[in-house]
Amino acid sequence: MPDKTETSENQMWGGRFLQGPAEIMEAINASIDTDKRLWREDIAGSKAHAAMLADAKIISGDDAAAIVDGLDRIAGEIERGEFNFSHALEDIHMNIEARLKELIGEPAGRLHTARSRNDQVATDFRLWCRRACEVATDGLKTLMFSLAQKADAHADAVMPGFTHLQTAQPVTFGHHLLAYVEMFSRDAARFEDARTRMNECPLGAAALAGTPFPINREQTAKALGFDRPCANSLDAVSSRDFAMELLSAASITAVHLSRLAEEMVLWTSPQFGFASLTDAFSTGSSIMPQKRNPDAAELVRAKTGRINGSLIALLSVMKALPLAYAKDLQEDKAVTFEAIDALALGLAATTGMIDDVKINREAMKEAAARGFSTATDLADWLVRELVMPFRDAHHVTGKIVAVAEKQRVRLDELSLSDMQSVEPKITKDIYSVLSVDASVASRRAYGGTAPENVKRESQRWIAALNREK
Amino acid sequence: MPDKTETSENQMWGGRFLQGPAEIMEAINASIDTDKRLWREDIAGSKAHAAMLADAKIISGDDAAAIVDGLDRIAGEIERGEFNFSHALEDIHMNIEARLKELIGEPAGRLHTARSRNDQVATDFRLWCRRACEVATDGLKTLMFSLAQKADAHADAVMPGFTHLQTAQPVTFGHHLLAYVEMFSRDAARFEDARTRMNECPLGAAALAGTPFPINREQTAKALGFDRPCANSLDAVSSRDFAMELLSAASITAVHLSRLAEEMVLWTSPQFGFASLTDAFSTGSSIMPQKRNPDAAELVRAKTGRINGSLIALLSVMKALPLAYAKDLQEDKAVTFEAIDALALGLAATTGMIDDVKINREAMKEAAARGFSTATDLADWLVRELVMPFRDAHHVTGKIVAVAEKQRVRLDELSLSDMQSVEPKITKDIYSVLSVDASVASRRAYGGTAPENVKRESQRWIAALNREK
Amino acid sequence: MPDKTETSENQMWGGRFLQGPAEIMEAINASIDTDKRLWREDIAGSKAHAAMLADAKIISGDDAAAIVDGLDRIAGEIERGEFNFSHALEDIHMNIEARLKELIGEPAGRLHTARSRNDQVATDFRLWCRRACEVATDGLKTLMFSLAQKADAHADAVMPGFTHLQTAQPVTFGHHLLAYVEMFSRDAARFEDARTRMNECPLGAAALAGTPFPINREQTAKALGFDRPCANSLDAVSSRDFAMELLSAASITAVHLSRLAEEMVLWTSPQFGFASLTDAFSTGSSIMPQKRNPDAAELVRAKTGRINGSLIALLSVMKALPLAYAKDLQEDKAVTFEAIDALALGLAATTGMIDDVKINREAMKEAAARGFSTATDLADWLVRELVMPFRDAHHVTGKIVAVAEKQRVRLDELSLSDMQSVEPKITKDIYSVLSVDASVASRRAYGGTAPENVKRESQRWIAALNREK
Amino acid sequence: MPDKTETSENQMWGGRFLQGPAEIMEAINASIDTDKRLWREDIAGSKAHAAMLADAKIISGDDAAAIVDGLDRIAGEIERGEFNFSHALEDIHMNIEARLKELIGEPAGRLHTARSRNDQVATDFRLWCRRACEVATDGLKTLMFSLAQKADAHADAVMPGFTHLQTAQPVTFGHHLLAYVEMFSRDAARFEDARTRMNECPLGAAALAGTPFPINREQTAKALGFDRPCANSLDAVSSRDFAMELLSAASITAVHLSRLAEEMVLWTSPQFGFASLTDAFSTGSSIMPQKRNPDAAELVRAKTGRINGSLIALLSVMKALPLAYAKDLQEDKAVTFEAIDALALGLAATTGMIDDVKINREAMKEAAARGFSTATDLADWLVRELVMPFRDAHHVTGKIVAVAEKQRVRLDELSLSDMQSVEPKITKDIYSVLSVDASVASRRAYGGTAPENVKRESQRWIAALNREK
Repeated sequence: MPDKTETSENQMWGGRFLQGPAEIMEAINASIDTDKRLWREDIAGSKAHAAMLADAKIISGDDAAAIVDGLDRIAGEIERGEFNFSHALEDIHMNIEARLKELIGEPAGRLHTARSRNDQVATDFRLWCRRACEVATDGLKTLMFSLAQKADAHADAVMPGFTHLQTAQPVTFGHHLLAYVEMFSRDAARFEDARTRMNECPLGAAALAGTPFPINREQTAKALGFDRPCANSLDAVSSRDFAMELLSAASITAVHLSRLAEEMVLWTSPQFGFASLTDAFSTGSSIMPQKRNPDAAELVRAKTGRINGSLIALLSVMKALPLAYAKDLQEDKAVTFEAIDALALGLAATTGMIDDVKINREAMKEAAARGFSTATDLADWLVRELVMPFRDAHHVTGKIVAVAEKQRVRLDELSLSDMQSVEPKITKDIYSVLSVDASVASRRAYGGTAPENVKRESQRWIAALNREK
Repeated sequence: MPDKTETSENQMWGGRFLQGPAEIMEAINASIDTDKRLWREDIAGSKAHAAMLADAKIISGDDAAAIVDGLDRIAGEIERGEFNFSHALEDIHMNIEARLKELIGEPAGRLHTARSRNDQVATDFRLWCRRACEVATDGLKTLMFSLAQKADAHADAVMPGFTHLQTAQPVTFGHHLLAYVEMFSRDAARFEDARTRMNECPLGAAALAGTPFPINREQTAKALGFDRPCANSLDAVSSRDFAMELLSAASITAVHLSRLAEEMVLWTSPQFGFASLTDAFSTGSSIMPQKRNPDAAELVRAKTGRINGSLIALLSVMKALPLAYAKDLQEDKAVTFEAIDALALGLAATTGMIDDVKINREAMKEAAARGFSTATDLADWLVRELVMPFRDAHHVTGKIVAVAEKQRVRLDELSLSDMQSVEPKITKDIYSVLSVDASVASRRAYGGTAPENVKRESQRWIAALNREK
Repeated sequence: MPDKTETSENQMWGGRFLQGPAEIMEAINASIDTDKRLWREDIAGSKAHAAMLADAKIISGDDAAAIVDGLDRIAGEIERGEFNFSHALEDIHMNIEARLKELIGEPAGRLHTARSRNDQVATDFRLWCRRACEVATDGLKTLMFSLAQKADAHADAVMPGFTHLQTAQPVTFGHHLLAYVEMFSRDAARFEDARTRMNECPLGAAALAGTPFPINREQTAKALGFDRPCANSLDAVSSRDFAMELLSAASITAVHLSRLAEEMVLWTSPQFGFASLTDAFSTGSSIMPQKRNPDAAELVRAKTGRINGSLIALLSVMKALPLAYAKDLQEDKAVTFEAIDALALGLAATTGMIDDVKINREAMKEAAARGFSTATDLADWLVRELVMPFRDAHHVTGKIVAVAEKQRVRLDELSLSDMQSVEPKITKDIYSVLSVDASVASRRAYGGTAPENVKRESQRWIAALNREK
Repeated sequence: MPDKTETSENQMWGGRFLQGPAEIMEAINASIDTDKRLWREDIAGSKAHAAMLADAKIISGDDAAAIVDGLDRIAGEIERGEFNFSHALEDIHMNIEARLKELIGEPAGRLHTARSRNDQVATDFRLWCRRACEVATDGLKTLMFSLAQKADAHADAVMPGFTHLQTAQPVTFGHHLLAYVEMFSRDAARFEDARTRMNECPLGAAALAGTPFPINREQTAKALGFDRPCANSLDAVSSRDFAMELLSAASITAVHLSRLAEEMVLWTSPQFGFASLTDAFSTGSSIMPQKRNPDAAELVRAKTGRINGSLIALLSVMKALPLAYAKDLQEDKAVTFEAIDALALGLAATTGMIDDVKINREAMKEAAARGFSTATDLADWLVRELVMPFRDAHHVTGKIVAVAEKQRVRLDELSLSDMQSVEPKITKDIYSVLSVDASVASRRAYGGTAPENVKRESQRWIAALNREK
């Protein structure tokens, strides 16, 4: 069946846009297609509010019970797909309130006491964003766990460490993956900080000025899992920095995901040949059976654009908006929902890819050994053992590499006499640092790529992430 | 019924994201929810391709006829809401091709000769973007017509011209509206230029390298209304600058719409009181009947954020993408569709508001007369009539304004002797420039706010826009 | 003297861009004009590194002393404006190292042992960003203090609370300002979180893989005020999320500043007339002495664009960048510097404006009383005293407002009998809620606009901010 | 000497930001450091204005001559580096006007007749942006010429055509480069369109309302090379869509440059080994002489972020800005200058790289032959020669590729009998399409990669671009 989009396109593009003022206004004003997604939060908020109103003797206990019962029935209807969402009722709040009236009659009219759509929507959206923080944190930790496990399995797999996409020094694949674990752990911390900061309850701010009713804002805040009520009613209904912070955290995470995705695309390209994905995370060609397109990685990479776009969209919407409520704020939800959906998908797909990917250790190691990648090891040996100044050691190393290049051999294949012809003090001990395995093994200072470091770090992460489960 | 969004949210947030690789991959890979919107373009492209293949003797005439007939039947099914879109078939192209196979059997398998999904989707999306250019241009011209008519009706309505939102000089409301007509006319020209530039046909570029079949690309290009085929197959399938240019034009237009929307919000605020909107383009409060919230203007203003977000999203997706096709390109459509929908709605809503708005000429004029807004007219008179250097005239004027300020009178209420006490050469002729009506009437140089200029320009625009209808 | 910009423009635009490869490469590659700003950080990092190398017996104590002494001399030269920055030496690191060699000879060549430009620049830039966090936090707290003091002084000044820029309910000016204190306090917390998260030391990561030297990374980290060394060398040199987070925090703060700036522009416009700025924060017109252009507010508002632009620039630079170091990372600094400069200026200018602004309490209160702004108070009274359902109370209120509107009186000017003609149960007690003063006084629930709440909150903030000084 | 940036940092970060209101206001308000770059445009505009004022008898011929002479002297002073720019005079306009007063006395005070800083700065900035369009167009054409020549030289060099960075079909290097020529030609057309659209003269719009003086706007427009004066004075001083369009064109161009830069980074990486850059466009390592870091390509890629950032900055500044002039507009210049500088540098560096790059034809061809890249040629042969439906041919081809894969041979190395075992109707004619050379040669339909096509197109471009020189 053609969906809404199609229908609205017909409307828009068929005639000269939309027919009349009423249609235009409904089209631009109704938010139900977007904010229906807040139904759970809206019902939770209303239930907490009703209970508080009764406890504060603002409405009767019977009315509160009827309201809570009605809301539970509505939740059931929505969950079972039996609820009839109406565009004429504009938004999720009015849709639910109207249905409540149908179901329970007059008490429904008392629910909105000491409340307004402004604090109601701010509360719903905060609850949603709070959940988004949790989901993002969970998704990140799941991904970190996969990365740490893969790193643990490949703590000693040597691959080229690149600068400028040129081979620079050997590193281990485990070390490379753990770099992402560090990034994603900071990303998770950003979502946690955002969650903590946003966890204040707007409910009770009413339209913008607070309310003359003797409401108990601590109670509703607590019932909804907030740490405390918002301290200023104007701030409560006007601010959306919680969503901007959520989208910032999402954008930075997306950038990290895109970097890993880019590497997946590179590693699985035939020119690199470092890794391969199964059918689960790539698509094939009926005609070229060996071709494995890393579609999932490319899509994760591309989603970054969308998430960044959502961030800039919301920053732009909020710029220079006077207090308190303005209808512009209605544009906060669609872009946030889209970004978080893209992020959740990106996290899940990346976790899937990391679990799925098979690496070609031989190809990686062979590539790592090319390009005189242990030249800095040679230079460091000169500094360390011959006490040469660093800059002089570099000069000597350059000369030795030139000899090796001329002979078309690797540094560890060059004869001692050839090296001594450049620098007579070099001893055969030099060979202890010239292989890629020796190179990575030597970088044992904290944070270095040595397999023993990698193993320690991967184990530490696995344990820490297991504890949190 | 809970829609797709809801369902997918359940999937995503319910369990630990998505259940397994297959679900994740389908979720991230399937584009049918978005690209189904291209069905008309896809069918048109396939019909043109089939006809060309037959003319070039690459397939038989009978096969082509069967294909065209099948595609027409599919179009009918989609239009009537009888087509069953399938996620498993991923995108609109495979959905249609699979249905064609069901309907006509073997000849369906010949349609894809000398074609690939890469040139097919590039063609579909260009056709859609071309139509978007036309719709935007139409929408802009409709809006310009409304503005020009309103300007014509208020060619001599005096209002404050602001700098820094401080009253600076009187202008006419007609002149103010025609400033937007100028902006929107350049916006329309941008869409027309974009349309011209994008109007080349990718069909026949195949996967990326062109095709060994003796196809006639001129024929398909012409059949689909393109000016010519794309000259380079790699460019044809890899480039999306046409969409980036479309979104740039949309973003600039959105900025212009947001400026007018901001003014609508200001003008209808009680502090300004310059204008009012009817119920058709504002929402009221059951409790404060005089309150008219300019929701439509605020939403138009906010949509700018979303449209700019789409632009930056696509720029970001395309950045540093190697040729030729990459799956990242699939992210081009959703953001473009959203931006153009928002733009079309914004144009329609703004046109509606302009037609709807009633201005309060008295309040505008009264505001224009405050703040010694004709001080520059006085200074210009001194320069012109007394041949004072500009900077000296400013000095004298400042002194006279100070006298008026002290007496709490308008400049045209100040006595001649008071003015002469500052500058004895001033004559009573000075009063001919001190009223706001005199001020605006005097600015007759080309482009100035004089009512006669405004009338000439509004008439010119009305005639020009009528001609194009 | 024509500056660099001018000169480089001549080069670029005069001939056909730049003359030859060497000039182009130097122009695109040299970063000294930007990164010279990191000289303090670079010298501090080198001093810490040298001291550690000596303690770890990697270089001699004498060499370390010579290095530290030379670096101190260089710092003096730079501070005194005697240092000659060279483009040929590309960046701040090479400029300083080359000068060190001139000053102390051979030991200079030992400083770079167990270090690389990659970890060096990452360390310098983190130190700068950490300082930026501190400066932003300080600037925010200074601004919050000014706002809290102004709020305290105007805890009971009634102004219109707007929704949609339409008068909705009375609030107090103090309450309005405290809404911003809440926003800015969250902004400050974001910078503090960013500072905490970024406070890990990259030094010792070397080029990308760590180092075989037995360095003490704890020591250098501690010496530079870092909480700990980075745990992964690849992450240390490749990541810039600390700068992206800094720019996110700056962008959100800028949005908040722009909202206050927008309100300053509105409040000081003659149409509002709520506030005025002195010459210190506005510019005048020689010809219209009463005109006070709120230039500072407009510039603060506009800086938001630039800061958001920097954020999107860096997100875009980092997107899809494979590990480890790439030259793209050199583009991180200019956009960050520009954004933080704009932010620091915006904070200082806003603080200045808040200290400077004089409000017109009468005009504010008079505006607050217009538009039946206490209609919700009336409705709430009906709910509270007559136990009407909320929706019915709204209906009755609408009718009473209609009567008042017809008589052109305020609600508190309407006779009791007129009200009773709509709802007979209304008593004269109703007048206790109909004035704007009564309205604000009644909103005593936590977070509401009641002057006693405002006073309590402003005092709380003043005390808290004083404590931190 | 420590530069301005350093000094201003000291001011800002040293004390608690800036010392007092005066310093803050000057710091945020003064634009001379940025807009001094407009000195040529400002002087040209003033000379045209003075000449017109004299011709229209608004000032005397002697005054005009004195003004023009004074302005020429100032231009000389600036060019020779003798002009003393003052922060206290805020901007370039006041700096020049003040100097003019010093040089020629009283007539300087007449220059500003019938003009305001608002139309003056709009004119200056348009002139600058117009020149930026020309410079960008020139830069693009120079780059296109280099690309076309390189394409011509490599019209038949076979390389892998990638989809998803997986080998898909052979193409020629010339064809690949010409894809960029197509993109850049559209970019150049965008700058040309932007130039045409912006080429209207704001001068004479005065502050915002036009002027009562009988000025001749056609004359000043013509003198400054504009096509016509702006038709609406409010639009003339308030609009910046010309700069937004310029930045849009720059952003799209930057995206194209970044794609080519990304490919340069890939091609020169050891994993690809398709191309190499000399020292002129890469940097080496003293220690690894074979390492050639493609710094220039990486910087070009990164500049995209900055240019996109400038675009979003200006869009954000302009959003929701009411007419006419607001100080926010002062933020238009810095971001535009930075973006255009980055673009000009990016174009020059890319041209340099294209001229410089050496390709490894053997490595490219060898890579192109791997991965059964002629599988579609085989399928197309089946369709064409055996009249198989496309989908069936794909099925057969897949089977044959599987045989070749098993035998670890290329398709053109597989025996006829092996192919016939899958599809008996295959004849030895099949070998005519299985080599990469045959594959590219066969794609002769318009736009395809056949060397003869490439040669024709490269020649066409070279001729066209030569004509324009």
